[in-house]
Amino acid sequence: MSRISDSTVRRLSHYYRVLEEVAAEGQRLISSHRLAEREGITSAQVRKDLSCFGSFGRRGLGYDVDHLREQIRGILGLSRRWRVAIAGAGHIGSALIAYRGFGEQGFDVVAVFDTSPQRVGRPLGDLAVRAMDSLSARDAIDVGVVATPARAAQDVADAFVAAGVRGILNFAPRKLRVPPAVALRAVDMTMEFESLSFALSQPRSARRPRSAP
Amino acid sequence: MSRISDSTVRRLSHYYRVLEEVAAEGQRLISSHRLAEREGITSAQVRKDLSCFGSFGRRGLGYDVDHLREQIRGILGLSRRWRVAIAGAGHIGSALIAYRGFGEQGFDVVAVFDTSPQRVGRPLGDLAVRAMDSLSARDAIDVGVVATPARAAQDVADAFVAAGVRGILNFAPRKLRVPPAVALRAVDMTMEFESLSFALSQPRSARRPRSAP
Repeated sequence: MSRISDSTVRRLSHYYRVLEEVAAEGQRLISSHRLAEREGITSAQVRKDLSCFGSFGRRGLGYDVDHLREQIRGILGLSRRWRVAIAGAGHIGSALIAYRGFGEQGFDVVAVFDTSPQRVGRPLGDLAVRAMDSLSARDAIDVGVVATPARAAQDVADAFVAAGVRGILNFAPRKLRVPPAVALRAVDMTMEFESLSFALSQPRSARRPRSAP
Repeated sequence: MSRISDSTVRRLSHYYRVLEEVAAEGQRLISSHRLAEREGITSAQVRKDLSCFGSFGRRGLGYDVDHLREQIRGILGLSRRWRVAIAGAGHIGSALIAYRGFGEQGFDVVAVFDTSPQRVGRPLGDLAVRAMDSLSARDAIDVGVVATPARAAQDVADAFVAAGVRGILNFAPRKLRVPPAVALRAVDMTMEFESLSFALSQPRSARRPRSAP
């Protein structure tokens, strides 16, 4: 259990979603076949993943939906709350403040920072934008969200690390360097948009088939 | 020029960002070394990429920033506008409507759809939410954004394809199947959040170093 690979975590995320769906439909038991469905995962892989943390289905019956959901919820850390700060009160920062799914996944946005004197002090959602240099370890931030322009992203990440964050979620279109003890994940919307824009610009004959990501 | 791989497109995205930064700093010339900077790209790769579309720097001087920026802008299709419809007026759909970066990248959101009778007819940004089944080829949508729960995502994608979209941007945590002629890109925020939540939940000793994505 101490070494779970990124790809296993991603499969657990998938199982969790399927379990939420079937729970909403009122089902109490689920087969490994149904858990594998639609993601290129085999039912043997499902059974292997779940046996790793001690969950065994009953032959011909399957897995208990509620029990398995709570187990995976615990493993993914979804029953805990994390204090989140957003750096960058621009387009992406504002959209993230508006994105309630953030909170549903255990991330509570407790501060938003910017370097622009025009933005500092202004309200954004329920918060007032703070000056970037007012961030300190006293804020007790768990996760720093980088939502700045690319050129500012590494400085902001460094400031988050100095303030003791344990994870960084990067929306800026720039690779970041952080110490190994800090978890780093990235969502590069700009690149997906540009890649889509490129694909749309091609004449139909030149476009190559591309499988679903 | 007719076959540009996904990885080349991603490098072009990167060059475009660097060019925007140096243009904002007032620079008129840029070296292949500076274009390669910070992304694990070699300057030889930069020169190869750029020579493919006929742009050659001058030895000891480099590339003309404005000219190169306009060239890449054209190749990525960023000087064109695309008509976008969002399916799903929930958390992600609302955040996307609030996200102005969408418009800056040439994507004009012209319609937003939902299946919920509670949401249809309500205002969202400058638009009124329309019933999902009112989508048709007459809407002339270029890009459909899937921002629904996972269980509805494939049906919505099928409806977009039937209405003649050329590209789909999927924010739902579910792999989608579309015909090869339709460009598909995905932004899986849920999975990044869950992966981060998992990493934060691990005791520090068990966390493995992970390079920047």
